[in-house]
Amino acid sequence: MDVAKVLIAGDWRKANSDSTFQAENPATRQQLPTPFPISNWKDCDDALAAASHAAQDLRKIEPERIAAFLEAYANNIESSAAQLIEAAHEETALPISPRLKDVELPRTVNQLRQAAAAAREESWKHAALDLKLNIRSCFAPIGPVVVLGPNNFPFAFNGVSGGDFAAAIAVGNPVIAKAHPLHPNTTRLLAEEALKALATAGLPMATVQMIYQLSNEDGLRLMSDPRVGAIAFTGSRPVGLRLKEAAESAGTPVYLEMSSINPVIFLPGALAERGDQLAQELADSCLAGSGQFCTSPNLILLPQSDATETLLQKVATIFKDRPSQPLLSSGGREHLSQGVTALRDAGAQLVTGGDIADGPGYRYANTLLRTTAQHFLSSNKALQREVFGNATLAVTATDPAQLLEVIQSLEGNLTGSIYSSNSGTDDVVYDQLAPALRQHVGRLLNDKMPTGVAVSPAMNHGGPYPSTSHPGFTAVGIPTSLTRFAALQCYDNVRQSRLPNVLKDKIENPATWRLIDGTWVQG
Amino acid sequence: MDVAKVLIAGDWRKANSDSTFQAENPATRQQLPTPFPISNWKDCDDALAAASHAAQDLRKIEPERIAAFLEAYANNIESSAAQLIEAAHEETALPISPRLKDVELPRTVNQLRQAAAAAREESWKHAALDLKLNIRSCFAPIGPVVVLGPNNFPFAFNGVSGGDFAAAIAVGNPVIAKAHPLHPNTTRLLAEEALKALATAGLPMATVQMIYQLSNEDGLRLMSDPRVGAIAFTGSRPVGLRLKEAAESAGTPVYLEMSSINPVIFLPGALAERGDQLAQELADSCLAGSGQFCTSPNLILLPQSDATETLLQKVATIFKDRPSQPLLSSGGREHLSQGVTALRDAGAQLVTGGDIADGPGYRYANTLLRTTAQHFLSSNKALQREVFGNATLAVTATDPAQLLEVIQSLEGNLTGSIYSSNSGTDDVVYDQLAPALRQHVGRLLNDKMPTGVAVSPAMNHGGPYPSTSHPGFTAVGIPTSLTRFAALQCYDNVRQSRLPNVLKDKIENPATWRLIDGTWVQG
Repeated sequence: MDVAKVLIAGDWRKANSDSTFQAENPATRQQLPTPFPISNWKDCDDALAAASHAAQDLRKIEPERIAAFLEAYANNIESSAAQLIEAAHEETALPISPRLKDVELPRTVNQLRQAAAAAREESWKHAALDLKLNIRSCFAPIGPVVVLGPNNFPFAFNGVSGGDFAAAIAVGNPVIAKAHPLHPNTTRLLAEEALKALATAGLPMATVQMIYQLSNEDGLRLMSDPRVGAIAFTGSRPVGLRLKEAAESAGTPVYLEMSSINPVIFLPGALAERGDQLAQELADSCLAGSGQFCTSPNLILLPQSDATETLLQKVATIFKDRPSQPLLSSGGREHLSQGVTALRDAGAQLVTGGDIADGPGYRYANTLLRTTAQHFLSSNKALQREVFGNATLAVTATDPAQLLEVIQSLEGNLTGSIYSSNSGTDDVVYDQLAPALRQHVGRLLNDKMPTGVAVSPAMNHGGPYPSTSHPGFTAVGIPTSLTRFAALQCYDNVRQSRLPNVLKDKIENPATWRLIDGTWVQG
Repeated sequence: MDVAKVLIAGDWRKANSDSTFQAENPATRQQLPTPFPISNWKDCDDALAAASHAAQDLRKIEPERIAAFLEAYANNIESSAAQLIEAAHEETALPISPRLKDVELPRTVNQLRQAAAAAREESWKHAALDLKLNIRSCFAPIGPVVVLGPNNFPFAFNGVSGGDFAAAIAVGNPVIAKAHPLHPNTTRLLAEEALKALATAGLPMATVQMIYQLSNEDGLRLMSDPRVGAIAFTGSRPVGLRLKEAAESAGTPVYLEMSSINPVIFLPGALAERGDQLAQELADSCLAGSGQFCTSPNLILLPQSDATETLLQKVATIFKDRPSQPLLSSGGREHLSQGVTALRDAGAQLVTGGDIADGPGYRYANTLLRTTAQHFLSSNKALQREVFGNATLAVTATDPAQLLEVIQSLEGNLTGSIYSSNSGTDDVVYDQLAPALRQHVGRLLNDKMPTGVAVSPAMNHGGPYPSTSHPGFTAVGIPTSLTRFAALQCYDNVRQSRLPNVLKDKIENPATWRLIDGTWVQG
């Protein structure tokens, strides 16, 4: 079978490549037929050159055309939904329904459309005008953005269609996407739709480029190339940290979403009030997507009590009874297995699961582990290991003081949840714990599981290091996620006719919010 | 004489130190009497522990008290102005008037008062409310901020009183300031006023701490300590890059303002129209503060023409006629001298100056160098060296295309200026050059010199790498400069009574701008 082509400078072209890889259907363990190229540096160099030109051209283009592209692309994805869903299901084994068809694909086109609306509205530019001094500033495109998507969202976080992509494009940057090697064909199909949409909207054809895979060496070289404006990555911490070092050595902003164990804390009053319901909620959240979510609860903190034992028993029963689902890959199961072993080696006790599971594909038994807060504190680093998949660790504490100590020992996380009673009996403890948890998480939840990340302007899908590389930014939530891919540009005493439209005294766009002499004004 | 004490945890205490240094009066070359300690790690460790506690306490404190501190501090500085100005003049040789007394000190208290107003208003928090989903987010303190000020602004950029300090405090972070070793006594006096103001406002006494100097090793260790929330540095590129690497290895946001040659471009029409006036403006800007400003024009781009020759002659005459002023230090003059030598070694021709100058203190002759654009392009890296002081390089281009090539070859800069004719004859060339210059600078100016950075919400004192470490942030301009020291914090389904005041449905502060369901609303 022919080697798949890469998308560079508007053309599907033969890759500069010495080797190939093939994806697999993880549900059947069957290798899929198409060979995909591992590109040489020449492909990166060509893509960077084309992206640099596209970046220049995009700066002259009206936001309306960028919005039109994003909308055309969303429409194309919907038109090709059947084929895309089939490809993604084949490469990831993620369920078609409820997931790829009725959750992830709609979310993806929704993100693209929200990004289009943000591009059109222009409020994300945070135009600030000091009319007296004639100093004006706004956010503007940062330059070509390299997006590296994760394994777990073939659409919604894909480098060529996901949230980072949508945000980078909405700002007016070209994107060079690197496909995740677990779903290259899905990525190829998406890129085809993107290319058609570029033609429809009349954007530079190198606005969207896509390669499949690189050697580690070329990958790091790409991170540190001075033509790159910014980098977005979602994936594992070890890989993220290597990319970070390479990017930062060149002074390039790099936004990484790396790891999170998402502590969920149950207070005594909540357990007394609705323990059964909470067990169900917790189990559903832990097993959603086989636990292969950035926000999957990996760490559950509870008081030592009969109610906790009842809850853990119920969770264990659900874990045992619910068939485990195929994981994304053999490697993913291997990592999960190693992670569970590492937690057990660090002293966590197995409640249920703890081994590979029967059934087609790569399955691992739904796994619940437990330990005491005292032990967690003594093996603190080892027990904070992110175990990506359907496994979670429950930690029981003798009293709120010990719970607080556990919270204070946590690394940075994307989320942290506290369940408390509706009657107010947990309020004193909540007030002790929440301020500490607040400092360790990007999103603090009450009475809600962290899985399911709404695309809202108020969302923060970010958090303190090492959950991400910068606590001031979010990867989800439009338009706030756009700022990552923007540079602040100031105009001092610049003549009216030479200003970008958004900074002129009078603006044509009635939707744009601007900060004029300290007051927010629309239109 | 007794060794000066460091300010740690609210007390002036004997430093943990094995060695000391003394400052010098650069106007007289006389060593000043007070020995200042080079602190050991123990001082850093104590300061970090105290700052961590202060950070927790500050999170519970109303913005009003933070504002009250900043205002009390500003008042104290004004009350002690005579003593502060004398100390700063003695340590820096900067003129009392017009500079320390009537420019820099007023600017410093103005910054503190603007920061107070921003803290009180709370709009910098960018509170975003999604009422339907009950998701809310805002910026919040990032944790203890280490501020390292530069040599050239003893008040306005001082680690314990300058713009970075004011921004970090306004957000609600404690600051650990490292004095610049060229003006330790000024810094000590400022810290005394800060400490009094902390008591007045009732803030935690470790909100402001100050040490004088550290070994390189301890300095890098401080950068990478996990208790540090963020770092701000203004200074040289070699030092900045070392701090950057240390901070980033720990995942800590680090905001560096490192170097800039601030290109100023004169187009033919402008030269024809007002060449004499431009020569004067240029010379004044180059020699202001003996050229020891981040925004001093180090690179002048001009067309090859008689008008250019006339302008350069006039600039040379002013450079020759105006007595050079004392530089900040012997080391500064040595760097300046090395820089001029390096430019000459790289092929720049000396027009005037080029050697140390007579007079008390450390003076260097006002220096003008020149070369052709063709040569500049051939020795591009060497000729973009920042020469900190009263020296500047003029580059003449045969045509606009060559000018464009020079602009495209530039590293990231804080500023870039274009002078064009009022009659419109330069407009075609302007439109060719400005888009390229725009991408290499943080602030684009028309018909205006870059020196003099207004403290305006629309200001950007930032720029692409390596002028700073991140193109999305500004070091000057309140409230925009505050965002550097803030983390994005989201509240998902959190009960109303548990939300921070700024995120509640109803807000008491009538001044605060918030983004509620996509609309900016005040109060």
